[in-house]
Amino acid sequence: MTIWNNLDTLEAYNNLVNSDKKVNLAEAMTGDNGADRVKKYSVPMAAGLTYNYAAKEVDDEILEKLVALANESKLSEKFEALYNGEVVNTGEKRLVLHQLTRGQLGSAVTADGVDKRIFYVEQQEKIADFAKKVHSGEITNAAGEKFTTVVQIGIGGSDLGPRAMYLALENWAKKNGCFKMDAKFISNVDPDDAAAVLASTDVAHSIFILVSKSGTTLETLTNESFVKDALAKAGLDASKHMIAVTSETSPLAKSSDYLEAFFMDDYIGGRFSSTSAVGGAVLSLAFGPDIFARFLQGAAEQDKLCANNDVMNNPAMLDALIGVYERNILGYPSTAVLPYSQALSRFPAHLQQLDMESNGKSVNRFGEPVNYKTGPVIFGEPGTNGQHSFYQLLHQGTDIVPLQFIGFKNNQMGVDVDIQDSTSQQKLCANVAAQIVAFACGKKDENSNKNFKGGRPSSIIVGDQLNPEALGALLAHFENKVMFQGFLWNINSFDQEGVQLGKVLAKKVLAHETDGALKVYSDMFEI
Amino acid sequence: MTIWNNLDTLEAYNNLVNSDKKVNLAEAMTGDNGADRVKKYSVPMAAGLTYNYAAKEVDDEILEKLVALANESKLSEKFEALYNGEVVNTGEKRLVLHQLTRGQLGSAVTADGVDKRIFYVEQQEKIADFAKKVHSGEITNAAGEKFTTVVQIGIGGSDLGPRAMYLALENWAKKNGCFKMDAKFISNVDPDDAAAVLASTDVAHSIFILVSKSGTTLETLTNESFVKDALAKAGLDASKHMIAVTSETSPLAKSSDYLEAFFMDDYIGGRFSSTSAVGGAVLSLAFGPDIFARFLQGAAEQDKLCANNDVMNNPAMLDALIGVYERNILGYPSTAVLPYSQALSRFPAHLQQLDMESNGKSVNRFGEPVNYKTGPVIFGEPGTNGQHSFYQLLHQGTDIVPLQFIGFKNNQMGVDVDIQDSTSQQKLCANVAAQIVAFACGKKDENSNKNFKGGRPSSIIVGDQLNPEALGALLAHFENKVMFQGFLWNINSFDQEGVQLGKVLAKKVLAHETDGALKVYSDMFEI
Repeated sequence: MTIWNNLDTLEAYNNLVNSDKKVNLAEAMTGDNGADRVKKYSVPMAAGLTYNYAAKEVDDEILEKLVALANESKLSEKFEALYNGEVVNTGEKRLVLHQLTRGQLGSAVTADGVDKRIFYVEQQEKIADFAKKVHSGEITNAAGEKFTTVVQIGIGGSDLGPRAMYLALENWAKKNGCFKMDAKFISNVDPDDAAAVLASTDVAHSIFILVSKSGTTLETLTNESFVKDALAKAGLDASKHMIAVTSETSPLAKSSDYLEAFFMDDYIGGRFSSTSAVGGAVLSLAFGPDIFARFLQGAAEQDKLCANNDVMNNPAMLDALIGVYERNILGYPSTAVLPYSQALSRFPAHLQQLDMESNGKSVNRFGEPVNYKTGPVIFGEPGTNGQHSFYQLLHQGTDIVPLQFIGFKNNQMGVDVDIQDSTSQQKLCANVAAQIVAFACGKKDENSNKNFKGGRPSSIIVGDQLNPEALGALLAHFENKVMFQGFLWNINSFDQEGVQLGKVLAKKVLAHETDGALKVYSDMFEI
Repeated sequence: MTIWNNLDTLEAYNNLVNSDKKVNLAEAMTGDNGADRVKKYSVPMAAGLTYNYAAKEVDDEILEKLVALANESKLSEKFEALYNGEVVNTGEKRLVLHQLTRGQLGSAVTADGVDKRIFYVEQQEKIADFAKKVHSGEITNAAGEKFTTVVQIGIGGSDLGPRAMYLALENWAKKNGCFKMDAKFISNVDPDDAAAVLASTDVAHSIFILVSKSGTTLETLTNESFVKDALAKAGLDASKHMIAVTSETSPLAKSSDYLEAFFMDDYIGGRFSSTSAVGGAVLSLAFGPDIFARFLQGAAEQDKLCANNDVMNNPAMLDALIGVYERNILGYPSTAVLPYSQALSRFPAHLQQLDMESNGKSVNRFGEPVNYKTGPVIFGEPGTNGQHSFYQLLHQGTDIVPLQFIGFKNNQMGVDVDIQDSTSQQKLCANVAAQIVAFACGKKDENSNKNFKGGRPSSIIVGDQLNPEALGALLAHFENKVMFQGFLWNINSFDQEGVQLGKVLAKKVLAHETDGALKVYSDMFEI
């Protein structure tokens, strides 16, 4: 059995707390030493990506202590227990199997009487078969016409991850001749969301994917009705336009309301579901099942690296450890994700859910309050846009915000212009390189308003191009980073009890069972 | 002359620091007391909006101290000095006149030899005239066909604000019969941004707006070349498809490359420019000049309220004071903006720039380091989407994050469905009401994993519907809140020196003038 201990009970952690050693980042990153650090503090990821942490406030001594922390916390053993099917989601008494949707790292995992790897592969194949039939015209609308658009109806993990992945590969797919169908997304219970998407969609040639594990998510069922209304008004039979992604036990699983149902299960948390049927259906329809398979392949390769118990060659584990060092030893309360790639415009929003919903907890996995900070606030926008926005605070604000850059040598669409002796892509890359050094080293100026103190830590993930494998590896890296941090903080990263109270109170409002402040707020909205 | 003092030199501030008084929010918001607070802690804004701060950690005693702080800090006098034309942007030695783009609060302001109110009105009228001619078909493409699309090329304040405003009113305009042209935006130097927008745009029927105050913004000029290339490839004369929004002294002002140029000036910071020609051109083309005028009207009315020296009836001043109390007395490092309106999907990104770029500073307006925290990290996504994402951390994380809700009684498009005895709009409103109370009051549970401590502060701005006036009022509220906070912190909210170093280093990279760490990073990208 895995032994779970609070972070502050670990000797290695207390060694870090009690150490006076601090890295002067501005100094460390200057001159030849800086160049050496950039070469040295670098570790390969899957799909040709590299994780570089030279501009983090660590050195060999601190890294050694962090490795000791990883070992004492038994991060590798915990991951091993997880992928071999231990009930790591202890609160909900569930296995945690999202890695199994893309590959098998350990022994066979049986649950609900089946081999779960076989189950996930079956679902992937069933989706692939369905998508191929849609693309070939074997499955059509009632008039025998091909479907041209797929619309995902889901919220939270059924929306943010798949949407971010779709946007990440949309232009790549168009450029590489594997773009099959437009994908759109309806998520918010605000009726203007569904109304606006439907107003710009050719519903007669659209497949709608209803995504809800439980089959009871209020927003999603509401938006399904919205869509059914629109289909009925267009004289269309909704059951010929809708598929479901749900659990086998949900009310949606065997309903004749859907052309087909694809399954996930309780072992895949919503925010970890992009590689399951939740992402699989929409991405396979949009880009073809082969592209989705390549995306899974990138994630699987990255998972393998994360199962490596050699900490210094395990990028997600290193990233997790450095993050905990920043959060608990250096006391930084937030982290910015800054992809220098317009295709990753919604990737920070996905990571925001992934990280904050997983690790925004105050009790450990035994329900005891923890005496240390857990998950930070995560936010971000693509560069260079952010440079003209909130970077002012990042450079000169009174709080230090650790930064996670992402960049690629090449763009996706292969169209570029040469202005002032450089292409746009070169300018983009020059900016991300420049920012890392600017944040780390700063620059002295007599005018203190123009003075940059530096000492602002960042890491970067660099790749050749954002393609399906690279995207899968990126996704898996952050999923695994969040998992390792949850292990270190001894919290359950796989439940989300913090979202329940709002739901309960909203139901009371709708049932007019309110009093006190809630009644006055409800009256304000004339509910 | 205005007297500028650091926050920590003020007696009223030290009274707050030395006070032991803390509000137990969970207690205060429970039962009849809670209901009374919600009724009492409410102040009208312009355009029928209301600012309610009942769920903030304040009471009459703390509010009294905050009013004393406002008075000692002379917030009203400082605002008066600003709108009467004092050089409040001391670093850059510039007036601060964005309020003057929508109304005149004080005496006439003369700069560059002209009455600036007259200048801004002239530009607005010139844009109105141009937009009407485009809409009527008096101004067409070379083939005599009407323009159908407007594409804004700009970054930072020339992008985020106008884009957020466009998205906020797009569906409202469609519903209300005043939608004139689609608007699109190109901002990132990532060539995939421009390439993707152009690939989905009918360039032959598009007007492109080049927005750059200086006329030298690298990203914007690069994207202009990108667009000109595309126009040339389509056999079109770029000068018949482009207009400029710039300052009169910029190289773009009198260039024959543009059909027309509209002017802003150095007294309008980019992030405050949505009500100037920067927002005016694109919004007037998209929705018609009358809608833009209504938007300005809402902002002007809100500005008037903010000029009120009765603190308790000045919503932006109250919001600013409570924010400083949270940041400096309670020590909260970030703030989330949570609009329950899909139309405001990019409003948080705009506020992120507005706030973090204005107040992310470490030196006061005399260049001396300050000994207190200034601007917080700002992030947010629309509700209910956020509820299924990062709200877990907001409810149960180890840090408290103050929240700014925004909600409207009615949706924009007027399409809705009734499911389980309520409409989507009712569900949306029920959720925001429920969240405020859930965050404030929490709920005890034996299972500590399901326990909610409460005590998590929020305020809400409530309106009838998001229309042009309400949007203008919302925008002005936050602009003025940020301005008042800058006054309190004694920083210059109107410059942005923190973005310069990155630009300088990026140029070095592109000129291959690198060494040390910067050289190794540049090599990674093969620049």
